[in-house]
Formats: sequence, structure tokens, C-alpha cells
Amino acid sequence: MVFENEYVCAFLDIGPVSEGHTLIVPKIHAENLSQGTEEESRELMAVVHMLAPKILKAIGADGYNLGMNQGECAGQEVMHTHLHIMPRKVGMMRTFTKLRPTKEELATSAQKIRSTLESV
Amino acid sequence: MVFENEYVCAFLDIGPVSEGHTLIVPKIHAENLSQGTEEESRELMAVVHMLAPKILKAIGADGYNLGMNQGECAGQEVMHTHLHIMPRKVGMMRTFTKLRPTKEELATSAQKIRSTLESV
Repeated sequence: MVFENEYVCAFLDIGPVSEGHTLIVPKIHAENLSQGTEEESRELMAVVHMLAPKILKAIGADGYNLGMNQGECAGQEVMHTHLHIMPRKVGMMRTFTKLRPTKEELATSAQKIRSTLESV
Repeated sequence: MVFENEYVCAFLDIGPVSEGHTLIVPKIHAENLSQGTEEESRELMAVVHMLAPKILKAIGADGYNLGMNQGECAGQEVMHTHLHIMPRKVGMMRTFTKLRPTKEELATSAQKIRSTLESV
């Protein structure tokens, strides 16, 4: 877990495409964005706005891809709304291949991000 | 153009990856989401929440990919914040190859989407 508020939690993807790949997830269950409320959509993006720069700083990344898949035909695998923040670095390939970090590596990345949040 | 409000406009991508591929763009210039305000981020996602189901209905699509690229290293080509809504259909390949619709085809798609919005 890297962040939590009243509406949303954010944690590292266990099959990340890059270090710091984070999922932003509403606490109230909805299968997808359309089935949630407008207010929940707003809260999700407010967290992306706040959190993405902290993740980039923590990981030493230069940009990110934001992504969401709604519907199986769009590649949605987990039927609960989630946004992906996928950090990218200059000079590194932009792949969507899932990496296999150890629990320790994930814990280290999460700690770096939480530290960046706490230092503000 | 398919939609416009105080904060945001939405129009079809001229190099779409699927029919109905729409860009959601804040009216106030910011190079990326991080350089805009939290309020602008909220407004962008409120429009995605409202507009995406209308686009799917208009185009006869079953789901969509939402995407945003922040930074050249993430593939950002136009240095003004924009979200992509990319409709997807069951049984069709999920490619990111840019299609080359004619102006007339784009105008027809835009009209279908505007009609769906007006019929609510």
C-alpha cells in the first residue's frame, strides 16, 4: 500500500510493467468507472494528480502512462475499477511486459513512495 | 467536436485506433496533468465518466481503453494534456495502429456521438 484516503486506496501492482507501477482503486465496489458515481471518478483523478509526481520522484522516473481498461474486450482482467500509473524513464523501452519483482523489491519501492509522500 | 463545457472540450482523434477514439482536453493550457490544477484533473474525469458510455452506445462498442501519456519518455506527442477514450468491441483486435478515416467518416462518427448526447 502506498496511499489511502476516504475514497481510494493505491498500491503497487504485483505484476508491474515498470518499477513503481501503481493501481488507484475506489473503496466502494463498482465493476468499472461507468458503474461508479461521477464523484468517485473525480476522486480517482484527484489522487492521480497528487500521487503521480510523488511516484516519479520516488522512483526517479521522468513520465508515466495512465491507463484503464473497461470491459473484457478492452483487456480488463479484474472486475473492480482500477487505474494504472506506469512510470517511464528517458532512454528505457516502454513495454507492457509484466515483471516479476520479489516481495522485498515491491516493499522497497512502496517504502520509497510513502517516504516521498511523508516528506511533503 | 463531440462535447464542450466550461473546462473541457472533447473531439475525435484524426488518427484513431478505433472508431469513436476521442480526446478529452482541458481548455486552459497545461503541458501535462501535473502542471494543471487538481480541479482540472477532476473535471477531466467527470467528463470521461459522462461521455464514455455515450460514445460506446453511439458507436456500438462494448468497452474502452482510457489512456494518457505524460512526458516524451511515455510517448506524449502533443504537449497539452489530453486523455484518450479508445472504444473496443468484443471479437475485435485491440490494436494501437492509427487508422486513416476520411473527413466524412469522422464527421459521421462525431454526429452519432452528438446525437446520443442530445437524446438524453
